[in-house]
Amino acid sequence: MFGGAKLKKLIGVGIGPGDKELITLKAIKAIKNSDVIFLPSSKGKSLAEQITEEYILDKEKVYLEFPMGEENSENYKMAAKIIDDKLSDGNIGVFLTLGDALTYSTFIYLYEELKKYEVAVEIIPGVTSFSAAFSKLKIPFSIKGEAVLVTDRDVDEKILKKVDGAVFLKANKNKSALEKLKANGFKYYYVKRLFLDGEAFYTDDKSILEDKDYLSLLLAKKE
Amino acid sequence: MFGGAKLKKLIGVGIGPGDKELITLKAIKAIKNSDVIFLPSSKGKSLAEQITEEYILDKEKVYLEFPMGEENSENYKMAAKIIDDKLSDGNIGVFLTLGDALTYSTFIYLYEELKKYEVAVEIIPGVTSFSAAFSKLKIPFSIKGEAVLVTDRDVDEKILKKVDGAVFLKANKNKSALEKLKANGFKYYYVKRLFLDGEAFYTDDKSILEDKDYLSLLLAKKE
Repeated sequence: MFGGAKLKKLIGVGIGPGDKELITLKAIKAIKNSDVIFLPSSKGKSLAEQITEEYILDKEKVYLEFPMGEENSENYKMAAKIIDDKLSDGNIGVFLTLGDALTYSTFIYLYEELKKYEVAVEIIPGVTSFSAAFSKLKIPFSIKGEAVLVTDRDVDEKILKKVDGAVFLKANKNKSALEKLKANGFKYYYVKRLFLDGEAFYTDDKSILEDKDYLSLLLAKKE
Repeated sequence: MFGGAKLKKLIGVGIGPGDKELITLKAIKAIKNSDVIFLPSSKGKSLAEQITEEYILDKEKVYLEFPMGEENSENYKMAAKIIDDKLSDGNIGVFLTLGDALTYSTFIYLYEELKKYEVAVEIIPGVTSFSAAFSKLKIPFSIKGEAVLVTDRDVDEKILKKVDGAVFLKANKNKSALEKLKANGFKYYYVKRLFLDGEAFYTDDKSILEDKDYLSLLLAKKE
């Protein structure tokens, strides 16, 4: 860049697991200092907007549609183009993302697409859904000497034999994990719609197996 | 509890990875509303105090000594007793802990000891050191379909064959991980003293192998 040309900047902001108070000062500051707010939405609804509404009332908001649980590669391409178009030189945009910005988030795919544009990127981490769920349940994610697996897919039983804990995101699609966990001496806790209407915690198989909510977590600890 | 007797309460507060702005609103609120601040210290120094100093200036502070990297089981017992002694009925104390309160933290052991007393416990999650490190490096912790191992000890190579990423805390003591990571196609990043004086990021083996700092992380991604 020559002659004082000013780059566009996008900040990927992890806004935490859904509790309005589990957002960081850094996230709030970035939102307040930004020129444009980019909000991921699914079927027209944006959880990120609900959580941050008090900070974005008078801001320009742009909704980027990423339907939850669907294949979104074209949407990421389109979103990167929209961001580049919407930001003027020297502008700062924020893209708000639930939980942590680099943990199973939409932002990661968007960031890859943004590399094709002259947009500088910064990232602000956030509290993950699973850290928040462990805190609510008062169960440790990990203690000294332990190994924990974090995944959003099915898992090889050989790994479960060698770890002390496991976290399954999007657990609604991964009910076969229950049998493997049981066979390997794990106790487990199913967390549904954390911080949202319909929040629930299940430990019984029947409730867990019947649930179909996309926003679900399974936390497991070897006994 | 009868006749309106008021319980003592202790809140375990994750204050984030060390950046003063990566603390949550919930953590700040809990600190401000508390009667006593319990601060973990190592050899008389408390990182938690430095990070939160602006919120605890006029508060009663109690230092609890847990030397980093040492065996502390007697210290946890003693700390639980001190907390019970210091809190009057109806009082709220906060115990401040770096990163997340339930991820390889001192608080977990303290919580176990506190179960012996009539002290109600709440927990506030925080941003982990590794989420913050991934954000600084702009590398994803995990994307859709991946599995990631998190540990603070040596790891079985069989697990590394089956995961896409790995996070090693206290990596200064675990240099043998490097060879295993290399043999299994991982790229790795060593993070030293995140947000502190002397912060450094290494990718070369020489620098990594020479470092001895307790506050170190190794982040690995399969290529």
